[in-house]
Amino acid sequence: MRKETRIILAIDETDGRKAVSVVKEVRDHIDAVKINWPLILSAGPEMITKLSKMTDVICDLKVADIPNTVRLIVEGAVARGAGAVIVHAFTGEDSLTAAVEAAKGAEIYAVTEMSHPGGVTFTAKHAEEMARLGMKCGVDGFIAPATRPERIADIRKIIGAKKILSPGVGTQGGSASSAISAGADYVIIGRSIYNSPEPRKAASDMERDIRSVL
Amino acid sequence: MRKETRIILAIDETDGRKAVSVVKEVRDHIDAVKINWPLILSAGPEMITKLSKMTDVICDLKVADIPNTVRLIVEGAVARGAGAVIVHAFTGEDSLTAAVEAAKGAEIYAVTEMSHPGGVTFTAKHAEEMARLGMKCGVDGFIAPATRPERIADIRKIIGAKKILSPGVGTQGGSASSAISAGADYVIIGRSIYNSPEPRKAASDMERDIRSVL
Repeated sequence: MRKETRIILAIDETDGRKAVSVVKEVRDHIDAVKINWPLILSAGPEMITKLSKMTDVICDLKVADIPNTVRLIVEGAVARGAGAVIVHAFTGEDSLTAAVEAAKGAEIYAVTEMSHPGGVTFTAKHAEEMARLGMKCGVDGFIAPATRPERIADIRKIIGAKKILSPGVGTQGGSASSAISAGADYVIIGRSIYNSPEPRKAASDMERDIRSVL
Repeated sequence: MRKETRIILAIDETDGRKAVSVVKEVRDHIDAVKINWPLILSAGPEMITKLSKMTDVICDLKVADIPNTVRLIVEGAVARGAGAVIVHAFTGEDSLTAAVEAAKGAEIYAVTEMSHPGGVTFTAKHAEEMARLGMKCGVDGFIAPATRPERIADIRKIIGAKKILSPGVGTQGGSASSAISAGADYVIIGRSIYNSPEPRKAASDMERDIRSVL
């Protein structure tokens, strides 16, 4: 994944045609597109391949299974054109290692703390442990919430030079520039670009906000 | 899902044609088929619909995301023909509630403890809490490992009359009859049937083993 605009466009919806058209429109202003299961269930796994011809595709599959199934999911996504896959660290060392080994050139990002209210009950309690486990297993980077920039800084202390992708910018309240200032390498932006009447202008405005702190 | 043979066939592989042919062969000896993401990534989400015309389909998607994404995944799987969806409980109350609300007539099963070695690090520590959370959110049942029948009995104490589906029978070492004796409603059996030279005979033998303790 290149590191130019530092923007990853998240598509959290199910309309395959809209996904393709928005990515086409904003591709110069993003480093990658992040898609997840709802789009695959609706538009088919061919969507990974189609989007990968326009930009890097991060499959945000939140993989959370036993090692053999993790391996098959990562292999399947990479075979379809994914450049990166997001997996949970909650499943422990063997599952995380299976993801890293199956990636073969693609990147693996681990979720430690989840950003929604329910993420506090179990995941937040173990976020630092999971970050250390991710380091041990050799993941390429981590997900840390832009809505809580202090948590980005905490995770950064544990993971050294590994990459941080930071969701929650825009509609969810986080600011792109403050996430980058706190140590994120990329911000993940969804609705503020995707549902904007002018997606290209929205992406370009975000890019300018980020450049102001670089 | 009917409760006759108490056998759920797990297809943990990626060959769509073999999946259809094995289900066709053993359908009288199973109550449902359980599929997961590797098959969907390889053969497409249409596989859910195709199999649902032969038997009940449990989508073992191990859903572990924020509430809105959980909702979209459950809705997508149910729209394709899933009769049940398996979700994680470690994402907390809001995500689990989103799954139950999105199911609309389909069933939601929650994973508490995972059966692989890495499952001990984080999930086993919170298994009872997660079972109680599942009860609070109104899930239809739980997953508990046949490889540790004493854990089935522990979970049963918390969940009353809710259903337990129990994986790990056969190749992984668990016995169908001892899982059912410990309180499981259904056993999930994969390779011992799927990879048998005679799948129909293997399923029928399992059925006989289960009937011996009913």
